[in-house]
Amino acid sequence: MGKNLASYRVIYGDTDQMGVVYYANYLRWLEMGRTELMRQIGIPYSAIEETGLFFPVIEVSCRYLKPARFDDEIIIETTLTALSRVTFDFSYKIFRKNAGQLLAKGWTRHACVDREGKATKISPALETTLKAALAPAPKEKSL
Amino acid sequence: MGKNLASYRVIYGDTDQMGVVYYANYLRWLEMGRTELMRQIGIPYSAIEETGLFFPVIEVSCRYLKPARFDDEIIIETTLTALSRVTFDFSYKIFRKNAGQLLAKGWTRHACVDREGKATKISPALETTLKAALAPAPKEKSL
Amino acid sequence: MGKNLASYRVIYGDTDQMGVVYYANYLRWLEMGRTELMRQIGIPYSAIEETGLFFPVIEVSCRYLKPARFDDEIIIETTLTALSRVTFDFSYKIFRKNAGQLLAKGWTRHACVDREGKATKISPALETTLKAALAPAPKEKSL
Amino acid sequence: MGKNLASYRVIYGDTDQMGVVYYANYLRWLEMGRTELMRQIGIPYSAIEETGLFFPVIEVSCRYLKPARFDDEIIIETTLTALSRVTFDFSYKIFRKNAGQLLAKGWTRHACVDREGKATKISPALETTLKAALAPAPKEKSL
Repeated sequence: MGKNLASYRVIYGDTDQMGVVYYANYLRWLEMGRTELMRQIGIPYSAIEETGLFFPVIEVSCRYLKPARFDDEIIIETTLTALSRVTFDFSYKIFRKNAGQLLAKGWTRHACVDREGKATKISPALETTLKAALAPAPKEKSL
Repeated sequence: MGKNLASYRVIYGDTDQMGVVYYANYLRWLEMGRTELMRQIGIPYSAIEETGLFFPVIEVSCRYLKPARFDDEIIIETTLTALSRVTFDFSYKIFRKNAGQLLAKGWTRHACVDREGKATKISPALETTLKAALAPAPKEKSL
Repeated sequence: MGKNLASYRVIYGDTDQMGVVYYANYLRWLEMGRTELMRQIGIPYSAIEETGLFFPVIEVSCRYLKPARFDDEIIIETTLTALSRVTFDFSYKIFRKNAGQLLAKGWTRHACVDREGKATKISPALETTLKAALAPAPKEKSL
Repeated sequence: MGKNLASYRVIYGDTDQMGVVYYANYLRWLEMGRTELMRQIGIPYSAIEETGLFFPVIEVSCRYLKPARFDDEIIIETTLTALSRVTFDFSYKIFRKNAGQLLAKGWTRHACVDREGKATKISPALETTLKAALAPAPKEKSL
């Protein structure tokens, strides 16, 4: 329910001279993932911006496990993993489609700001939608 | 007078798996060149935007002669080569600094638009400044 | 037959502060178009590189007619329009999917080089495939 | 000693439609910073690659505190902060030059791999140089 699978085909322009995808370009894929997740749960980001709200990334983290390569079809799995009054977090896994190999894992934290860039509370309507899409917290292991 | 020399050091993220700079990234350098030329002639682009004018690229052309590579220091030579009431053109040459090799040649045509993206005449003040910076037309053939 | 239609959804990272797609990013789309055309005609570019051939862009030209915007679904229409012994050309049209509006037109010229970057003749097998995919020359005007 | 200050002028192509620099582009600046630090300590990355070693990023983290904007001059402060037998870490601070404002903080972890991408020990010579450049660990608490 609160999970989206987006796909993308790696282009030449994504690679660098090591013959693999340049590390910054994975962050474009994280954006693709969260944009599609938001569309899926009924709050497309373009519609949100029209209301005067913006969700800039305030923190990103990414671990690169195996390199993505030219022409790979990749899958971006996105989940909404945390939600507070003023921030929310997405988690991402990036897979190579054919082999199903996990290539990278990451997360982003977003603030909610208005047109002037001032931090703003997430509106109740938006909060309700986000809350419904929130992935259940992973069970740590309960005795 | 109407010529600017800007410089840039090629980063890994500019290259692709052919081991050379990806062709789209040269267009970032053209932007660096014209931005520095405009600053040099007294009309920094950031100041122009504050007046509500924008100069989007409406046409670009680029010929790639020799590849730029990681860590190359490149020089972008920019000249203003044409000016009409509603458009103007920049020409560019990209050199590798050390050897002075010409790597690429290109040009861009720009429109003048307002905040809504509507074509607008270049203001008289702006036109005067641009005209003064205009490179003399190349002599076609002197006997 | 020799025409490919590829699609792409514009992301935030493609846009610039004018609120439209940055001009260099269209060149990534041209790459998407020709890569899909080559796959369609049976010579995927990744397979070509494995044989030790590379098709670097030696010239690009692009006219920007209307701006592409965030979240637009665009269609890249690619045709192979010229073929000589050592170069070949692709032409491109970029449309906004919904309205079918033409956003940009461009073309690229490619050389054929070996691993060392030396110009090489296109092999007969490759030439046959490319020739079959060649778009018929546009009729200039028939009375 | 083990600290490098690199500078860069933000271009239009770095921004997005929020009017600020797109979050992925900061990772290009981190690369600029570490490349200049390595040049400064006598092991330019291009020379390292010629010996058959590569230092891919295996993890990145970045916090965005204040937005960088078009035409900002930014300063990237890079330090080498950790070194093990098979990985090393850089830390980065990104400042706006004029006001000295801290815009972002980040770090990257790098592996050492050979041409085939296989993890390799950092050579003793390289280790000596890196060790000499290592920033002293921050004192946790001084009485």
